[in-house]
Amino acid sequence: MSFAADELTRDAFLRGRIWLYQPKLGYRAGIDPVLLAAAAPVRDGQEVLDLGCGAGAAALCLLARVPGARVTGLEIQPEYCELAERNARENGVDFHPVLGDAGDGGRALAGRNFDHVITNPPYYRAGAHTLASDAGRQRALGEQVPLADWIATAAKRLKPRGYLHMIQRPDRVPDMLAGCAGRLGSLELLPLAPRAGRAPELVILRARKDGRAAFRLHAPLVLHQDDMHLGNGKNYSPAILAVQRDAAALPWP
Amino acid sequence: MSFAADELTRDAFLRGRIWLYQPKLGYRAGIDPVLLAAAAPVRDGQEVLDLGCGAGAAALCLLARVPGARVTGLEIQPEYCELAERNARENGVDFHPVLGDAGDGGRALAGRNFDHVITNPPYYRAGAHTLASDAGRQRALGEQVPLADWIATAAKRLKPRGYLHMIQRPDRVPDMLAGCAGRLGSLELLPLAPRAGRAPELVILRARKDGRAAFRLHAPLVLHQDDMHLGNGKNYSPAILAVQRDAAALPWP
Repeated sequence: MSFAADELTRDAFLRGRIWLYQPKLGYRAGIDPVLLAAAAPVRDGQEVLDLGCGAGAAALCLLARVPGARVTGLEIQPEYCELAERNARENGVDFHPVLGDAGDGGRALAGRNFDHVITNPPYYRAGAHTLASDAGRQRALGEQVPLADWIATAAKRLKPRGYLHMIQRPDRVPDMLAGCAGRLGSLELLPLAPRAGRAPELVILRARKDGRAAFRLHAPLVLHQDDMHLGNGKNYSPAILAVQRDAAALPWP
Repeated sequence: MSFAADELTRDAFLRGRIWLYQPKLGYRAGIDPVLLAAAAPVRDGQEVLDLGCGAGAAALCLLARVPGARVTGLEIQPEYCELAERNARENGVDFHPVLGDAGDGGRALAGRNFDHVITNPPYYRAGAHTLASDAGRQRALGEQVPLADWIATAAKRLKPRGYLHMIQRPDRVPDMLAGCAGRLGSLELLPLAPRAGRAPELVILRARKDGRAAFRLHAPLVLHQDDMHLGNGKNYSPAILAVQRDAAALPWP
């Protein structure tokens, strides 16, 4: 099962550092996987798992910043997994998508463990979301597997002291924290606010295997500024502009 | 068991709208109960429980704003309960502290239910905090009863659709959310940041009995501003100044 050529677009990410084939009608990556990739403190030589990698946006953004990372993807939808393989090949990077389920402990990756897991799981709780007209988009946006199972798989696939980074909507924070309980520690929550003083519309959770530090709630990172000319169409704040333009790391507080 | 006269100070809250006897060496109220009282949308005639009321700071601040509320306190330390009674009397308000445990479902209030519960429970997990030199202060700051039991008592004592407001440190957010799971819904978290761009040092949780709305994480409310002369020694931001000076409600997002 594959997408036909006329079902795809080819889109620039990070100002053209990477190009991604994406389905016209399916799940299309926005800024979320870009920010997710920028949030994880990955170093050259480390092993990274992109859990539910889709067409590979987060994995490829990460490799643009850390070319020496070795990134594996896990994706349950065959046509997206195939697209991710194609995107890895076309961008010439060390990214290897594997077909498999994020909700079964990552059995397709049995015996493998990673320094980092990054994941942008479906945003909507099963049953809570109107069906998308496209089945692949629906699957990417609407949860089939409970968030706690995603986290359990991440925890299982992490090496000792390894990091999970997850981007999600703020309304899933209780599920995220509950899913980490007893599995991951040293939790930190970074809210991402569209503008200063506005409620966050995304959050990034950082959690660590065997972590024992107290939970931390950070000040929101502001994505857009209204009051400046920042030389970019969307008035991204300087930190976000650096991520987009220079493939910089997200400044974690 | 009572405090001796020379063990007490008499302190102004809300610019002298209320006066509170407090132990010199025991738990002394800061801005936390003031903000807690300002956060609850209490109306005249409603019944309110201040769970773990101490000397009564939150209850008295609430009554300064909503004189027609009927406020009950529950306090486990007899000398603080007695002090709260004295503070109620001296301020001439409808506040009735009851001696009892916040961790046993509030048995001292058996059969009673409230439109609102407000609570400023101990900030430090049992065993995680160096003992305070004063036993009463230690009890007020350090947890004897798990936070989940405070929340269970609050849930039990709320009328249908009643509100809980709790002020806590951000590192207790996972415990707060876990404690609400299955008991209270429509959770909202309001971070309180000392200054713009700084991590919150307090959070107020709003939860509702029988609530079914999605969790909401709000933009932080900023307590102090550096860059203005606001006519108050601590440079409180306008919203906080209104709480302090005019006994205003906290502007909930």
